[in-house]
Amino acid sequence: MHETKLRVRYSETDAQGIVNNANYLSYFEVGRVEWLRAAGLSYKKMEEGGYGFVVVEALVRYRRAAFFDDELTLRTGLADLSKASLRFEYAVLRDGEVVCTGYTRHACVELPSGRLIRTPEELLKLAPDAS
Amino acid sequence: MHETKLRVRYSETDAQGIVNNANYLSYFEVGRVEWLRAAGLSYKKMEEGGYGFVVVEALVRYRRAAFFDDELTLRTGLADLSKASLRFEYAVLRDGEVVCTGYTRHACVELPSGRLIRTPEELLKLAPDAS
Amino acid sequence: MHETKLRVRYSETDAQGIVNNANYLSYFEVGRVEWLRAAGLSYKKMEEGGYGFVVVEALVRYRRAAFFDDELTLRTGLADLSKASLRFEYAVLRDGEVVCTGYTRHACVELPSGRLIRTPEELLKLAPDAS
Amino acid sequence: MHETKLRVRYSETDAQGIVNNANYLSYFEVGRVEWLRAAGLSYKKMEEGGYGFVVVEALVRYRRAAFFDDELTLRTGLADLSKASLRFEYAVLRDGEVVCTGYTRHACVELPSGRLIRTPEELLKLAPDAS
Repeated sequence: MHETKLRVRYSETDAQGIVNNANYLSYFEVGRVEWLRAAGLSYKKMEEGGYGFVVVEALVRYRRAAFFDDELTLRTGLADLSKASLRFEYAVLRDGEVVCTGYTRHACVELPSGRLIRTPEELLKLAPDAS
Repeated sequence: MHETKLRVRYSETDAQGIVNNANYLSYFEVGRVEWLRAAGLSYKKMEEGGYGFVVVEALVRYRRAAFFDDELTLRTGLADLSKASLRFEYAVLRDGEVVCTGYTRHACVELPSGRLIRTPEELLKLAPDAS
Repeated sequence: MHETKLRVRYSETDAQGIVNNANYLSYFEVGRVEWLRAAGLSYKKMEEGGYGFVVVEALVRYRRAAFFDDELTLRTGLADLSKASLRFEYAVLRDGEVVCTGYTRHACVELPSGRLIRTPEELLKLAPDAS
Repeated sequence: MHETKLRVRYSETDAQGIVNNANYLSYFEVGRVEWLRAAGLSYKKMEEGGYGFVVVEALVRYRRAAFFDDELTLRTGLADLSKASLRFEYAVLRDGEVVCTGYTRHACVELPSGRLIRTPEELLKLAPDAS
């Protein structure tokens, strides 16, 4: 489980005065990049090396609104990891209260072709039960 | 089921050359606004009249990538409607092929307070089985 | 001068209840893509053919706020065109009133390298005074 | 002159593989909020107190492309301040090289009405030559 901090930007709010629902998927994207960095992997270098992730499914459960200038804590964990796909889980918190939770499921693709590939070895090593 | 057309904007793509995953939630937002308009309701007037929707849950299943300048068809339908919540379903298509599907579940709130309220009567009338 | 219509999306507004200032640059981007299409050129095909535009300078003058669900008219014109750069001018209107005006200046680049190149012939032909 | 750091998010890039031109205006928005905070003012509290800024004019000069995961330094300064308007200047740097520069000019408005007002006293005190 990795934690990173986010300060809500004015451009991320909408006319209801709250963070627009779509932006949480961008927050989640930040979360998995930082999770990988904490695990010793650079998503940027992965893509330069010829493969990347595509999102196959995303779910967000919105519990509370977040507002401009809020300091949010974004928790990211790797929930599932197989040769076919991987899944990250997220929780966004403010002052210890859950703002939203969610997950994203990914497949690996060769870049720039976008062709589906098996999860590379350097990722499979990160599995919680890998030894 | 309501259909609206969307042309993918350059700003909606990301460095993989495809529509960034978060933007589909903005497309869905367009879809429900247009669904309501087709049903004779203006979401703008709803909010001016003192209530609106907040998203409680959102799911997106990504099947194919979409690219800059693609002409997308966005299909929106009202799937569930009760005093407590409502749910819209969406499908994004390109040339008859499914790009993604998903749903958003909403609660109604009083504005600007954001306090949860029951689904107003003018919406309940839209239920598929309302008579 | 080319005209295209835009309906303000909820995600384009911010907590002041108006279209966030940054989004006008995305509207301008739509405007020049549509201007090119009206001139018989596809920006998508230009990029597939190996060159594109990069923005060198952008100016926006904000006159009035725009709001969710506003129907905006986006006027785009090609103001300058030389071997070194090109410049588009824009006006966003609502019910005949100017919401904002601006321009973007561009250089042409080879893709995917991003190396600066002279404005290609197929574009130079579009100069107002080309004969 | 205030400095803040920004890490380029994947969602901020576009299909050219670079930060989309519109996002620099969102970066600038972050810059002025952080400038105000460093000066002892909370833009959030300003708005809660009944007034805010609207952007009257914005200029961006793009010098170099920025890429996913770049660590950018955003420098913000208050360039002009009068009873009628204020102007912030910005520079975005990466490893000491200028990525872009620009400015935004603002008027103050009463909220939520959006009516133009004179620059409030608590801001006028921030003028470089105020004594």
